[in-house]
Amino acid sequence: MAPVGRPRSDASHAAILKATYELLQEEGLARLTLDKVARRAGASRSTLYRWWPSRGAIAMEATLDTINREMSLEPQGDNALAEYRRLLKSVARAMRGGTGAIIAGILAECQRDPETLRLYKEKLVGPRRAEIMPLLQRGLADGSIRADVSPQTILDMTFGAIYHQLLLHIPTEDAWMDGVIDILVNGIAAKPSR
Amino acid sequence: MAPVGRPRSDASHAAILKATYELLQEEGLARLTLDKVARRAGASRSTLYRWWPSRGAIAMEATLDTINREMSLEPQGDNALAEYRRLLKSVARAMRGGTGAIIAGILAECQRDPETLRLYKEKLVGPRRAEIMPLLQRGLADGSIRADVSPQTILDMTFGAIYHQLLLHIPTEDAWMDGVIDILVNGIAAKPSR
Repeated sequence: MAPVGRPRSDASHAAILKATYELLQEEGLARLTLDKVARRAGASRSTLYRWWPSRGAIAMEATLDTINREMSLEPQGDNALAEYRRLLKSVARAMRGGTGAIIAGILAECQRDPETLRLYKEKLVGPRRAEIMPLLQRGLADGSIRADVSPQTILDMTFGAIYHQLLLHIPTEDAWMDGVIDILVNGIAAKPSR
Repeated sequence: MAPVGRPRSDASHAAILKATYELLQEEGLARLTLDKVARRAGASRSTLYRWWPSRGAIAMEATLDTINREMSLEPQGDNALAEYRRLLKSVARAMRGGTGAIIAGILAECQRDPETLRLYKEKLVGPRRAEIMPLLQRGLADGSIRADVSPQTILDMTFGAIYHQLLLHIPTEDAWMDGVIDILVNGIAAKPSR
């Protein structure tokens, strides 16, 4: 999200993102408008429209830091699968709060605005996957994850399970996340068929 | 979605649902309005507003038959896991077409309209799960699915994986669905840890 036009003032930039984040938590993305953000931040409408092409873009920029902080991957020397389990439980916890509702709102906005979808993939999905991938590849390399599964499909399934609960407004409880991880690791077949 | 007010005329009811389905395929749910449906169907606006509380409600009613037909569960005497695999592949195929885009639109609408979410759970998620559940329970009973997994979590994970692709506009290819089912059945651990 490179700035367009004159350079941003850091102070008003921060005030605008703070106002956006507050409005997202209070009313959700579906009710956000750049006008409301301008009023709350005491910024001019034209400034906002010059800096951000859409409410999807400003919502993403306002939440990205929080999302990245809440779902951090801090290696602790565990084996890869144990570390992945720990990461997913921190994601599940983050998703139970306001961040989960904001992500559900961004996913909804992606269905009506292709530019928001593009930004979501570029700014959030891509970097998160690039961060997690070495962990799964370590598991593949050390033989703890079997060699014939696709790490991409593992990520589709785990984040998919979380999206499912978010979109149906079902809390991502720790016990539920444990059940997901157990199935992911061990499968559901009584006797493995491979 | 019981009719409100005077009984519906079957002919105009069918014309309205047909018009809705066409508009959903042409423009998506985010651009649907009851006014557009009324114009296309040659129905009065007041009739529509009396029969359907929201665009989410009319979209759901217009697509439910198609969704149920495209994702049908026809028992063929296979074991439970083979039958579940067959069902999921038919779902993946259905989701690659217009129906997938419509479901993504309904999921988006659920984020801004609680009544659409309620209807989606009541009319679609609930009945689909009730239909699939006996299949998973048969697998639990005959010992092909291990006894300590929750059938609900199995469904969260499989439909979650599909939602993930739908919302990010990634086609649900057969080979991808096979990979999801393989992980679901066999897990990702090289050696099962249970």
